[in-house]
Amino acid sequence: MNTAPIGIFDSGIGGLTVARAVFERLPHESTIYFGDTARVPYGPKSPETVRRYSLEILHWLLGRDVKAVVIACNTSTAHALMALREASPVPVIGVIGPGARAAATATRSGRIGVIGTAGTIASGAYGRAIRALRADAIVEERACPLFVPLVEEGWFDHPAAELIACDYLEPLRAGGVDTLVLGCTHYPLLKPLLQRVMGPEVRLIDSAEETSRTLADALGERALEAPADAVPTHHFAVSDDEARFRAVGSRFIGERLSAAEVVPLG
Amino acid sequence: MNTAPIGIFDSGIGGLTVARAVFERLPHESTIYFGDTARVPYGPKSPETVRRYSLEILHWLLGRDVKAVVIACNTSTAHALMALREASPVPVIGVIGPGARAAATATRSGRIGVIGTAGTIASGAYGRAIRALRADAIVEERACPLFVPLVEEGWFDHPAAELIACDYLEPLRAGGVDTLVLGCTHYPLLKPLLQRVMGPEVRLIDSAEETSRTLADALGERALEAPADAVPTHHFAVSDDEARFRAVGSRFIGERLSAAEVVPLG
Repeated sequence: MNTAPIGIFDSGIGGLTVARAVFERLPHESTIYFGDTARVPYGPKSPETVRRYSLEILHWLLGRDVKAVVIACNTSTAHALMALREASPVPVIGVIGPGARAAATATRSGRIGVIGTAGTIASGAYGRAIRALRADAIVEERACPLFVPLVEEGWFDHPAAELIACDYLEPLRAGGVDTLVLGCTHYPLLKPLLQRVMGPEVRLIDSAEETSRTLADALGERALEAPADAVPTHHFAVSDDEARFRAVGSRFIGERLSAAEVVPLG
Repeated sequence: MNTAPIGIFDSGIGGLTVARAVFERLPHESTIYFGDTARVPYGPKSPETVRRYSLEILHWLLGRDVKAVVIACNTSTAHALMALREASPVPVIGVIGPGARAAATATRSGRIGVIGTAGTIASGAYGRAIRALRADAIVEERACPLFVPLVEEGWFDHPAAELIACDYLEPLRAGGVDTLVLGCTHYPLLKPLLQRVMGPEVRLIDSAEETSRTLADALGERALEAPADAVPTHHFAVSDDEARFRAVGSRFIGERLSAAEVVPLG
């Protein structure tokens, strides 16, 4: 039993979908969320830069005595998971492994689509993770750079969002994938649209949900869970522009996002 | 006469539309362009952070012996122009004043629209600059956050771009503006689309062109021009991800963008 908080971080706001999934699956756990809003987005940055930023955030979270760290950011997971695991005395969980495992299990045809930011797709991390679990999988990866700004604009059902989704997803539909990994923490908010465009027979894999499941397992294996009578606290911190974080973030997480601490990193 | 280069900087790639306008208007002038691709975008960052980053870049450019500095970034102009003018021994030109002047001159009805990123519009800088020149002007400002990713995706004529532009511009059309300021350095690439949506009678003000005109005047007044037989050089530097800068930047500037130096700031 351990009432220390779980650290969760992202380059910005998107990781709140992971935080929300953690709140729902682990309602007794306290959390500290860090959004690196001063340096968002990580996608176009070099792997070295993403690693350096991620290590800074890890050390900030460790200074807050977290008992586990969730990298709620696909780009950071792709470039920095190994470095953070080496540097961290507490378990570090990324978003790519859980999504890849769920996809490798869910697919029947072995044809899996992965969508994400340009940085995540260019890293090829999902393809490698899926093929390591299922060598015969055919993985079609597609960068969808307009999805993040569409989500941040709140245009989940705008006719333009539908056109953009049809354009991005056409090669995956044509390739006959039966499973689609949402490889960006913003994308769960587009689920109804993506399901409509892909058709009802395609299984969508939500990395946020899968990651919260992996976190629950990791805490259980190490006896790190909070007791069932623990009253959780949820703390939020950002590196810049707290007002915008709260305004846009409330769309991701609902009413829990009432205030955020500003921590100038970098 | 002075063959020193002109420094031009932006948070990233967009300022290349300004660089291109400078190349075209001042074909004998050498330039050094700095794109802060490690810290792009500036729009969501706080005014203090944008000022700090802009001052760092100013000092880097001054170290390269520039004879003038163009802030080819609306957010940086809005938040840092005064600070840079105080700190700089050479003339500093922003993109907002030239666009505002051109709009105040061009309008017949006095109703002027301004479009830009969320940061530029929230700053209110264009409205203030226009009303300082023409107190009776009615300025309608509108943030268009999806335009930058649309331009970077190269989707100038995608049906989704048309739907998005219609949505963003509807209040400006309804407000009867006769002049529209493109208050973001990415937007000149959307000119045909924006003209189509606004209608042929609305005058579009391209801040990049207007800024190059103001720069030419400033060099002339101070006798800082390069001689007519000078052979110009154009140097590019970025703070991260040189490959993406060249790939996307070539859409902005054509074949001149063959290589960029990487300068790690921040």
